[in-house]
Amino acid sequence: MIAQLQQATPLRALELAPVQPATIGEREQIREVARRAGVFNAIELDTVDELLDAYYADADRSGYYFLSYRDGDRVLGFAAWGPRSLSERGYDLYWIATRPEAQRRGVARALLEAIETRVRERGGGWIVIETSDTPTYAAARGFYERCGYARALFLPDFYRAGDGLMAFAKQVG
Amino acid sequence: MIAQLQQATPLRALELAPVQPATIGEREQIREVARRAGVFNAIELDTVDELLDAYYADADRSGYYFLSYRDGDRVLGFAAWGPRSLSERGYDLYWIATRPEAQRRGVARALLEAIETRVRERGGGWIVIETSDTPTYAAARGFYERCGYARALFLPDFYRAGDGLMAFAKQVG
Repeated sequence: MIAQLQQATPLRALELAPVQPATIGEREQIREVARRAGVFNAIELDTVDELLDAYYADADRSGYYFLSYRDGDRVLGFAAWGPRSLSERGYDLYWIATRPEAQRRGVARALLEAIETRVRERGGGWIVIETSDTPTYAAARGFYERCGYARALFLPDFYRAGDGLMAFAKQVG
Repeated sequence: MIAQLQQATPLRALELAPVQPATIGEREQIREVARRAGVFNAIELDTVDELLDAYYADADRSGYYFLSYRDGDRVLGFAAWGPRSLSERGYDLYWIATRPEAQRRGVARALLEAIETRVRERGGGWIVIETSDTPTYAAARGFYERCGYARALFLPDFYRAGDGLMAFAKQVG
């Protein structure tokens, strides 16, 4: 039994330990991380708020799941993801953000890998990330590609003139 | 003034006349058309129902708009569309269906063109249609392509094994 347990909890589980479902006590920190990320506009920040409401009220019903990356009591980053409606195997990453002072420490990668693990555990097959083609999101796009996401869709000027929709996707199971 | 009016209501308006916002009295016929289309599963039919609820309660708030194609009191087809959230120029076609006995009479094309006109009038730029890659939807995919929609995304096995996500898109403004 011990051997089986060891097999079931490899190093990976320890690596992912800072990433956990967001608690209600982390709400203000998550809002702060979103605000300080510096890429989201006011409407997008309001949307993060609405999704947090839905998640805290009833995560399974809302279909929005928030994970936070913690260093002690401090939230260094968060991500929101969920199943695509009418799909058994498709999932979306809705938001991912890291505190500016915690960049380049693997926070976002740990969050994304934790989501991939969860999607796989639920029998999911794809994660889709819809983002923008503007320079503001260049670092994010590079990050997604380094994490194995491939550009799957590009519709220029989709959000507004000069701000196109670019979707990345990765088959995780 | 008469000259201006004539200019503002060209033949196109007459051609589109059978297509109008769905009325509450058409609800049962719309459900029937969806059911008889033969391509939607039970969960998808429930979703059509939910969107109808939202549309009749408050269309602008819901973000779902239903159009019906009428021949007298008879609804020959319907379509549901709406703005993509967080986007100023992106719109989705959610559902489109024609009665089996009214196929090949231009009903779906008239519905789709009416949506394109409305999207353009609202300053929209893109219409996205997410559909399936299964044989069941082969006729629908061919129809979208004949209407000028290009394949923009393909994720195999996205909905479930053997049932992939295929998205078509058209720049309409």
